[in-house]
Amino acid sequence: DLNIIRGCDAVILAMPVETIIKIAPVISQLVSKDCLVTDVGSTKVEIVKILSKIFPNFIGSHPLAGSEKSGILQAQEDLFENSLCILTPTAATSTLVLRKIKALWQRLGAQAVLLTPKSHDKILSFVSHLPHVSAFALMRTVPKNYLRFAANGLKDTTRIALSESELWVQIFLTNSRNLVKAIESLEAQLSQIKGALRSKDRKRLKTILEKARKKRESLEEKSKIQILQNPK
Amino acid sequence: DLNIIRGCDAVILAMPVETIIKIAPVISQLVSKDCLVTDVGSTKVEIVKILSKIFPNFIGSHPLAGSEKSGILQAQEDLFENSLCILTPTAATSTLVLRKIKALWQRLGAQAVLLTPKSHDKILSFVSHLPHVSAFALMRTVPKNYLRFAANGLKDTTRIALSESELWVQIFLTNSRNLVKAIESLEAQLSQIKGALRSKDRKRLKTILEKARKKRESLEEKSKIQILQNPK
Repeated sequence: DLNIIRGCDAVILAMPVETIIKIAPVISQLVSKDCLVTDVGSTKVEIVKILSKIFPNFIGSHPLAGSEKSGILQAQEDLFENSLCILTPTAATSTLVLRKIKALWQRLGAQAVLLTPKSHDKILSFVSHLPHVSAFALMRTVPKNYLRFAANGLKDTTRIALSESELWVQIFLTNSRNLVKAIESLEAQLSQIKGALRSKDRKRLKTILEKARKKRESLEEKSKIQILQNPK
Repeated sequence: DLNIIRGCDAVILAMPVETIIKIAPVISQLVSKDCLVTDVGSTKVEIVKILSKIFPNFIGSHPLAGSEKSGILQAQEDLFENSLCILTPTAATSTLVLRKIKALWQRLGAQAVLLTPKSHDKILSFVSHLPHVSAFALMRTVPKNYLRFAANGLKDTTRIALSESELWVQIFLTNSRNLVKAIESLEAQLSQIKGALRSKDRKRLKTILEKARKKRESLEEKSKIQILQNPK
């Protein structure tokens, strides 16, 4: 029953991307013009384009937290602590609305970062949507009768393939252009490794792997710094 | 000082694949003909081909346990509990040697499974070597300045890119034919997803993701069964 949100001061839309877009006009009939509205959708260009027309006080959010699990039983009190939350204001966003939404996320322990919806979707296509594509593709690749020999390597690299497929279909479709480009970049990298293997080019292979390892190491460092910057 | 292994009843070679092959002739000068010899290399065809000529009582092993971490400080007492250990006997392997090596792994809590060296290398190219290729390639793909926006999805899918690069160069090079084929299968799956994205084919995309999700779920089930079959 959506009537529960009548008279609310703030509404956070936490649904699959297309549901957010579909439900927005319905919600706008129930809340006042002053109501603060944000969402937690994983793509921002389409949502911001549509919702900023519907709600005078809207700003898109994307908290970079959560897991492959879904449903109320997976709720976690400290989910947002030491996480990053991307906010995607537009030229039309009022300073007051931005300040309030920023404060909301900071209260939950997240660090707020501003990006344009366009930059958000491009960056996320690489750091989040592509890893999901790769996990789904990897699971499709491994023959079923080989699965009993799978150890932690395959399990970790494909854990996010446990994510709700409908949720990800919607994310992929609302960011398809960026995602196609990101997949092409991944294909180019796979092709490089394949080339080095075919020519048994040890030196080239070593360079590729070592550079990847160092970059991954810098990712660990980044997480540590983030935690230090947000002490309790 | 290798002299420490003089008079040993059993030797386990736990080194990078090529080091195992290089050190084998040296070891064979130090141990008696009766010495049981096994190894824990991640590819088996080349190792078994060479070491079974050098040692009369050799059998290849590949315990499917461990992580991206290396070094004595990462030692774990219960590392092999509830894990699988692949043994790769040949037609020339004596029953007694097989029984003893099997007993060794079972004592450590592992379940022993027999495969030919050839089957081992093919299966592992999909369940272990390909996920590593994909993790290294994914890290190479993500632009450096996007890394601060990486959350758990990218971290999990690329954790194994933290593995020692020299170790993996040697694994990849000693299994390059199978691995090239596995990479090509992954490329075909990526291409399917890309095609569905380009044509905005929602139904096809949903089917691909849902099948991948279910397969990944069956992987979770398999781990649970394995643990049940090996109760403490």
